[in-house]
Amino acid sequence: MRSRIPTGILGATGLVGQRFIQLLDNHPWFEVVALTGSYRSVGKPYGEACRWVLDTPMPDWARNQIIQPSDPGTVTPARLVLSALPSQQARDLEPLFAQANLTVCSNASAFRQEADVPLLLPEVNPEHTALIGYQQKLRGWDGCIVTNPNCTSTGLTVALKALHDSIGVVRVFAVSLQALSGAGYPGVPSADIIDNVIPFIEGEEEKVELEPRKMLGKLHGSEVSPAPITISAHTNRVPVIDGHVVCASVELSHLVTKQEAAEIFREYQTPEISRCLPSALPLPIIVMDESDRPQPRRDRMLGRGMATVVGRLRPDPLFHLKFTVLSHNTIRGAAGGSIYNAELLVQQELLQ
Amino acid sequence: MRSRIPTGILGATGLVGQRFIQLLDNHPWFEVVALTGSYRSVGKPYGEACRWVLDTPMPDWARNQIIQPSDPGTVTPARLVLSALPSQQARDLEPLFAQANLTVCSNASAFRQEADVPLLLPEVNPEHTALIGYQQKLRGWDGCIVTNPNCTSTGLTVALKALHDSIGVVRVFAVSLQALSGAGYPGVPSADIIDNVIPFIEGEEEKVELEPRKMLGKLHGSEVSPAPITISAHTNRVPVIDGHVVCASVELSHLVTKQEAAEIFREYQTPEISRCLPSALPLPIIVMDESDRPQPRRDRMLGRGMATVVGRLRPDPLFHLKFTVLSHNTIRGAAGGSIYNAELLVQQELLQ
Amino acid sequence: MRSRIPTGILGATGLVGQRFIQLLDNHPWFEVVALTGSYRSVGKPYGEACRWVLDTPMPDWARNQIIQPSDPGTVTPARLVLSALPSQQARDLEPLFAQANLTVCSNASAFRQEADVPLLLPEVNPEHTALIGYQQKLRGWDGCIVTNPNCTSTGLTVALKALHDSIGVVRVFAVSLQALSGAGYPGVPSADIIDNVIPFIEGEEEKVELEPRKMLGKLHGSEVSPAPITISAHTNRVPVIDGHVVCASVELSHLVTKQEAAEIFREYQTPEISRCLPSALPLPIIVMDESDRPQPRRDRMLGRGMATVVGRLRPDPLFHLKFTVLSHNTIRGAAGGSIYNAELLVQQELLQ
Amino acid sequence: MRSRIPTGILGATGLVGQRFIQLLDNHPWFEVVALTGSYRSVGKPYGEACRWVLDTPMPDWARNQIIQPSDPGTVTPARLVLSALPSQQARDLEPLFAQANLTVCSNASAFRQEADVPLLLPEVNPEHTALIGYQQKLRGWDGCIVTNPNCTSTGLTVALKALHDSIGVVRVFAVSLQALSGAGYPGVPSADIIDNVIPFIEGEEEKVELEPRKMLGKLHGSEVSPAPITISAHTNRVPVIDGHVVCASVELSHLVTKQEAAEIFREYQTPEISRCLPSALPLPIIVMDESDRPQPRRDRMLGRGMATVVGRLRPDPLFHLKFTVLSHNTIRGAAGGSIYNAELLVQQELLQ
Repeated sequence: MRSRIPTGILGATGLVGQRFIQLLDNHPWFEVVALTGSYRSVGKPYGEACRWVLDTPMPDWARNQIIQPSDPGTVTPARLVLSALPSQQARDLEPLFAQANLTVCSNASAFRQEADVPLLLPEVNPEHTALIGYQQKLRGWDGCIVTNPNCTSTGLTVALKALHDSIGVVRVFAVSLQALSGAGYPGVPSADIIDNVIPFIEGEEEKVELEPRKMLGKLHGSEVSPAPITISAHTNRVPVIDGHVVCASVELSHLVTKQEAAEIFREYQTPEISRCLPSALPLPIIVMDESDRPQPRRDRMLGRGMATVVGRLRPDPLFHLKFTVLSHNTIRGAAGGSIYNAELLVQQELLQ
Repeated sequence: MRSRIPTGILGATGLVGQRFIQLLDNHPWFEVVALTGSYRSVGKPYGEACRWVLDTPMPDWARNQIIQPSDPGTVTPARLVLSALPSQQARDLEPLFAQANLTVCSNASAFRQEADVPLLLPEVNPEHTALIGYQQKLRGWDGCIVTNPNCTSTGLTVALKALHDSIGVVRVFAVSLQALSGAGYPGVPSADIIDNVIPFIEGEEEKVELEPRKMLGKLHGSEVSPAPITISAHTNRVPVIDGHVVCASVELSHLVTKQEAAEIFREYQTPEISRCLPSALPLPIIVMDESDRPQPRRDRMLGRGMATVVGRLRPDPLFHLKFTVLSHNTIRGAAGGSIYNAELLVQQELLQ
Repeated sequence: MRSRIPTGILGATGLVGQRFIQLLDNHPWFEVVALTGSYRSVGKPYGEACRWVLDTPMPDWARNQIIQPSDPGTVTPARLVLSALPSQQARDLEPLFAQANLTVCSNASAFRQEADVPLLLPEVNPEHTALIGYQQKLRGWDGCIVTNPNCTSTGLTVALKALHDSIGVVRVFAVSLQALSGAGYPGVPSADIIDNVIPFIEGEEEKVELEPRKMLGKLHGSEVSPAPITISAHTNRVPVIDGHVVCASVELSHLVTKQEAAEIFREYQTPEISRCLPSALPLPIIVMDESDRPQPRRDRMLGRGMATVVGRLRPDPLFHLKFTVLSHNTIRGAAGGSIYNAELLVQQELLQ
Repeated sequence: MRSRIPTGILGATGLVGQRFIQLLDNHPWFEVVALTGSYRSVGKPYGEACRWVLDTPMPDWARNQIIQPSDPGTVTPARLVLSALPSQQARDLEPLFAQANLTVCSNASAFRQEADVPLLLPEVNPEHTALIGYQQKLRGWDGCIVTNPNCTSTGLTVALKALHDSIGVVRVFAVSLQALSGAGYPGVPSADIIDNVIPFIEGEEEKVELEPRKMLGKLHGSEVSPAPITISAHTNRVPVIDGHVVCASVELSHLVTKQEAAEIFREYQTPEISRCLPSALPLPIIVMDESDRPQPRRDRMLGRGMATVVGRLRPDPLFHLKFTVLSHNTIRGAAGGSIYNAELLVQQELLQ
C-alpha cells in the first residue's frame, strides 16, 4: 500500500469543512494533516473551535488538531488542499497555495469560470484536467486550482451529460428545491423556513445557467468551448436538511420515449479513467421507477451520497422530456465532489 | 337589506368544507342552512362529526347543525349549494342538485372540462357564465353547475390573464411548490414530508396544463375556444401548511422589461361586473419588489387570502419573462373561489 | 379623547421590537415617536434597517422613521419607552432613561430580580407597582423601570396565580416546549431544528424557577417576599414558530378534582384595576376541554395572543394536578406584556 | 455456523414491520421465512403490498415474499414470530401462535401487564424470562409470549435501572417529546404537526407510569412484584421523524452529584447473559457532556439505534436529579427491542 497523500482542509470548521472531515475518515489515499480556519478559530483544537452539526460523531483524529491560519506555510507537509473557503477568501487565498506547489481542489465559485481552470465532474469531463498545464504555464504556478461546480449544477449536469452524449441537449428549464445545508451554517434562520419556502437564492440561478455549459463543453487545446445549450433556472429554498431536487424540462435534438431516456440514464457509464476511484460509482445515475421518487430524505444517501438520482421521466408538452433529479448537495455537490476531483488527479498522475 | 340566500355546503366536514364555513361566517349574501357529509357523519351535529383543523374557532352557528346526506331533498330551502365533494361523488351527485333547480358552485374537478360548464375566475372570465343558459337547455336542468379551477391553476391563470390581455402569452413553464392543505385532511402523512419534498401530485400536472387554457379562452356563442397557449407543468408537494407557489417562465408575443411587466400586473383590474363583490379585490394582483418574496407563510393572507401575489420578475434566457406566483390554495384556490363565483352569479342575476 | 402618550421603542429592529410596532399600530393610548437600534441601523429609515419577519405588513408610519441611537436624548418627546434591548444593553442603558424622567417598560431580564423593580403581570400582581415609589427614592430617578417576566414564566404564572389564590400552590414541575421566536432573529439555525428538538435554552430554567415566585409573592411595604413555592423546570426548543407550551404538575395545599380546577381557571378574573385596559382580557384564562389541546399553531392567537390557554386537566400520581399551558411568547410573553404593563401604569396614574 | 432460526413477522407491512425487515437483513441468528399482513395485503408480494417508508432500500429477499394471513398455519416452518400487530389483534392472535408451539416476541401492548408474561429489556431484567415456564403451565401452551415495553418507557427504564441498582429510585417525573414514527404510518397528518406540538398521545401516559415499575420489579418465583416507584408522565408529540426524548426529574434514596450520576450511567453494564448478543451494547447508556445534547436527529443512531443516550445531568430543586434521555423509538423502542428479546431467549436456550 502506498502511503497516503498529506492533505489540508481550508475552512475546516464550516459545514462543507465538516463534510470533508467526515468523508476523509479512513480515506485510502488522503490523510488529513492540517485544518485551517478563521482568526477566531486559529490556535484552538478542532473539537473546540468547531460546532459539529453532522449526524455521525466527529472523528477522534480531528478533535485535537490545532486550527491553523489559511496560509500555505501552515499546512506543511500537505501536497493537496481541499478548499471550503467562502468565495471571496478563495479568490484571495487559493492562488497562494497553487503558487506554493500545492494542488487546490476547491468547492468555491471564485475560479470556476476562469478559462484555464477546470470545472470538473469526474463522471462528466475528466479530460478537462488538461487545462492544468496551461494554467500553470500562464500563471507561473507549480501547483494548480481545480474546481467542482455549484451543488445545484452537479446532479443536473450529470443527467444532462448522459442525454447530451447520446442525443444532444438544446434547451433546458430547471427549477430547484434546495436543501438548507446549501446555505452553510448557521445559514437559513428557522424563523424564515418552517412552514415556508424562499423563492430566491443569491447568485444561484446565474451559476445553474452557466456552469453546466462549461462542463459539457468541448476541450480544444487550451480552451473549453461551452456547449451550445441554453438553460433557464429558478432556484428555491425549501425546509429540507440535505439533498437538492431539480425539476427539468429538456429539449433534445430529437424526441425519445421515456423508456429510451431511462435506458440512456441507466446505461451511462462513468468515463474509464474515473470509474474505479474510491468515490466513484461506475454507473453514476440511478433511475427510480416509482411515481413519487426521488425524494430528498429517502434517496439522498443512495450510492453513499454520490449518486445522481433521476425519476419521473415523462414527455414534455413544450420540449421533449421532463424529469426530476436529486443529488446530495454537501456530499456529491460539495465536499465529496472536491475529493472525487482530487482522486481523479491522482489517477491521472497530476497529483502524487 | 335584502335577505340572505339560503345555502348548503356539500362535503362540509373536510378541509375545504371547513373553509366554506369559516368564510361564510357573517357573509352578507349567503346564509348556511344545510351541511352535508358522508354516511359516517350523517345525523351527527357538525361540532361532533367534524375534526376542525383551522386556526380560528368553529363558528357557533355551525356547531349544532345536523349533518345531512348529500341529497337535494335534504338541503331545503337552499337555493345555492357550494360543493367540496370529492371528484367522483361530485360527478354522481352534483347533477341531481342542478336538476332540482339548485345552483351548484363546485370546487370539484368533475365537470371543469365539460364544454357547457363554466370554469370560472371572476377576475378573469366572468363572461363565461353565458354557458349556463346552454347548459340548462342541453341538459334540461333548472339549476346549473359552475366550477372553479384547481388550486394551482388559480393564481397562475390570474397572472397569465394580465399578460395575455396586454401582450399575448404563447408558452408557459410552470413548476409548483404546493402546500399540504391541497391534499385535504388527513392528507399527506407527516412521515412523508418532514425534511422532505414529494415531486409528484396525482393528476395535478394535467390540470395545470389544461385549465388555464379554457379560462383564458374566448367565448363564441355556446362555446369556449381554448386559448392557444402551451403549458408544461411540474408539480411538487412541500412542507408548507397553506399557500401554493408557482415558478413560471413565459413566452410572450413580444419582449417586455420587468418594469413593464410589473406595471401590467399592478394595473390589471378585476372586470367591472366582478369588482365590487364581497370577495373581490379591485386590483387582484399584488406585486412584491423584495428579492425573496412572495413567501407562503408571510404572504398567503394578503387580500384576506384572495390575492394573487407576484414577485421575482426578471428576464428569462429561453422565453421572455420569469416570475413567481403565490396564491392561497384553500381560500382563493378553493372555498373562497367557489363563493366568489356564487357572488358573481348573484351580481349577474343568475342566482336569486 | 385625550392625546396619546409619545412612546419610544428601544431595540426596534429585532423580533420583539417588530411585535411592539405591530401591536402599537392604532393603539388608543400610545403613539410611537422614536425607534432606536444598534449602530449598524442608526440613521437609516426603519423600512430599510429592519428585516421585517412578521406575517402582517410593516405599518406605513414605521417605514420612514429614522432609527436613533438608544439614548434618552434621541427619543424626545417620548415619556414612555418600551424596551426590547438585549439583557446586557438593558442593564447599561435602561437606567439612563429612568434617570431622564422616562418610564421604561422592559422586556429584558436585566432588572427583573432587583428588589425595587416590579416584575409585573397585570392579571396577577398589579399592586407590585407600589415598588416604583421606593425605586425612585432609592435610585434618585424621576422615571422608573418596570419589567415583565420571561416568556415561559408568563403563562405558567397566570395559571398558578388562579390556583394559588383559591387553594395554594406548594410545588411545581414545569417542562417547556418552546417556540423558535423566543430566540429572536436570526435565532435558531434551521439546520439545528428541522426534524429535531434542542433540550436546552441558556439561562431559561433558572428564570422559570425564580420569576413566578416573585410575581406570586406578597408586597410588604417596600418589599416583595417571594411566594413559598418550589419550582423545577426543564426547558426545550421545538420546531414551532410561535407559542410556548408548558407541561405542569402541581402540588396544592389540598386535592381538587379536575372539574374544580377547570372552574378555578375559568372563573379567575383579571384584578379590577387591570380589567378594562386595551390589552386586557377580563377572564385571562381559557380552558379547553378537547383532549389534545391547547396546540401552539391552533390556539396561540386566542384572545388576540393575550390569553393563557389551559388544557389537559387531570390528576397527578405524585402531586395533585397535571395540566398543559400555552401562551403566545412574543405577544403575551414579550411585547404585548410590556405594553399591557404600560397601560396599567397609565391606569394607576403612574404614567401620564 | 448453526443454521438460522426460521422467523415470521406478524404485521410486516406497517412501520414497525418494516423496521423488523430492515434490522433482520443479514441477521446472524434469524432468517425471515414468512410475512403476514391484513386481508388487503394477503396474497400480494411484499414489494407491492408495502408502502416502504424507511430511508434504506427494501431488502431484495423481502420484495417477492407473498403476504400471508396472520395465522399459525401460514408461517410454517417459523419457530419464532416477531409481532408488530396492533394491540387488539395481538390480543386475539398472538395466543394462537403461542399455543401452536411458536415463540412470540411482541411489540404490542396487549399482554405486557399480564402477570405471567415477561415485559423484557435484556439490559434490565433478563431474569424475568423465568415467567415463561409458569406461563406455559398456566395456559397450557407449548410456545410463549414475551413482550417489550412501549417505546417511551424503554429508554427511561434503562436509565432508571442504572440509578435504581446503585442508589434506589423513589419518584419520577417524566415528560416526553415523542417522534412521529411512534404513531405508525400514515400516523399523524402533516396538517396537525408542522409548526405545532400535540400535547396528548392516547394511552401513552398510563403506559409510562406503569411499565417501568414491572421491569424494575423483583422476581419472586412465579411473580414479579413491581418496584415501589411512583411515576408521573406527560406525553407530547413533536415534529421529529424518529427518536423519543424524555425529560426526567428523579427522587433517589439519597443525593448524588451530577458527576456521580454520570459515572453510574456510564458504568452500568448490560447483564452478562445479554451482553454479547448480536443486538447488544455492552455499555448500554451513552452519556453526553455537551450542554445541548442529546438531540433526536443527531444522536438517535448512536449504538446503531440501540443506545440509551443520557445528557443534561444537573441537580433538581424538588427531587434530586434532572436529566434528558433519548432512545430510538422504532429501533431500540420497538422492532430492535423485540429482536433483542428473541436473541436473549436463544441465549437462554428458551428458543432453539
